[in-house]
Amino acid sequence: MELIDRLKWRYAAKAMNGQKVSQEKVDRIIEAASLAPTSSGLQPFEIMVITNQEIKEKIREIGWKQSVITDCSHLLVFAAWDNYTAERINKVFDLTNEIRGFKNEGFENYRQMLLGLYPQRDPEVNFQHAARQAYISFSQAIAAAAFEEVDSTPIEGFDENALDEILGLRAKGLRSCVILPLGYRDAANDWLVNLAKVRKSKEELVTLID
Amino acid sequence: MELIDRLKWRYAAKAMNGQKVSQEKVDRIIEAASLAPTSSGLQPFEIMVITNQEIKEKIREIGWKQSVITDCSHLLVFAAWDNYTAERINKVFDLTNEIRGFKNEGFENYRQMLLGLYPQRDPEVNFQHAARQAYISFSQAIAAAAFEEVDSTPIEGFDENALDEILGLRAKGLRSCVILPLGYRDAANDWLVNLAKVRKSKEELVTLID
Repeated sequence: MELIDRLKWRYAAKAMNGQKVSQEKVDRIIEAASLAPTSSGLQPFEIMVITNQEIKEKIREIGWKQSVITDCSHLLVFAAWDNYTAERINKVFDLTNEIRGFKNEGFENYRQMLLGLYPQRDPEVNFQHAARQAYISFSQAIAAAAFEEVDSTPIEGFDENALDEILGLRAKGLRSCVILPLGYRDAANDWLVNLAKVRKSKEELVTLID
Repeated sequence: MELIDRLKWRYAAKAMNGQKVSQEKVDRIIEAASLAPTSSGLQPFEIMVITNQEIKEKIREIGWKQSVITDCSHLLVFAAWDNYTAERINKVFDLTNEIRGFKNEGFENYRQMLLGLYPQRDPEVNFQHAARQAYISFSQAIAAAAFEEVDSTPIEGFDENALDEILGLRAKGLRSCVILPLGYRDAANDWLVNLAKVRKSKEELVTLID
């Protein structure tokens, strides 16, 4: 099967049937999310993987009461760093030197450049930048889920502050961005499953400059 | 080949060899970008596909002079809507009704809800939201390129205003967000190609709440 066929098969499931996704598949989806590229390799986010039904019920209440939040198998929450700090930046650069087994002058200069730029910036600018990186990871999780023939429902419609509260994210220096229930479609109860996928025409989306 | 193996193979190529990517592969990468989910299905962005060498040279000048910008085969520019307007929202909802062949009350109520919310908001808030959707598409293009064994280099490091100027984006109500050269790695001249991929440990990235 080609990736593109799986992406056509994918849709934002509006009803799920409670069936569990195997640990093997969840692991691959999470690994794809981890492999996603991020700005300067900082991976400025964390992923909460929620299977606890009580917590899912609480999140459903602040997520437009969408049934997939409780009827999914695993609920992923992508939470971005609330700010870039010297400590966070240094940790990634130190890890890189450790894994690669050497220090590189160009890389160390790049570290200093980031240290001179990011921690001084408005935290809101930094959070917005970190959130975009979380979206790159989120999107690769969606593609990987489709490849595994696992349904997913990208959801921005929830009360971020309430979710941060439920999961204690602010105390960890994190802010929730977007959530992704993983599971299996309940086709009999899903109004969207049989409707045509709608996308702009290629002419509307793409401009060739040759 | 599994998707996950291709995502491990992927890296942000720092040198490309000028070899052309076949139209078939470019088409599939663009299709993946188009299939990416977006908030309310609005697809609030456009993609410029640049093969013109003079334009690539100009963009390289305002893109930290990165060689991949000129040595790639196709340069993708993801440009988000500068704002949500009633006209733009209605166009998507009208297209949806046309493709699906019917009007649905719930869907029309949802249209009115968006019309009552988005066009009145601060344009910067709307742009930031649209940019996140562009990132979802951008990320699926990266995954699709990897699946096609095409190299790509995610780049945020460029002067957005200068790029908007070069491509005349503001006049179209667009603002550049992120660019993606597609091509083939020049392994002999790429300092990054043989360095280990660095990612946070799963323990650092993921918290299980069960």
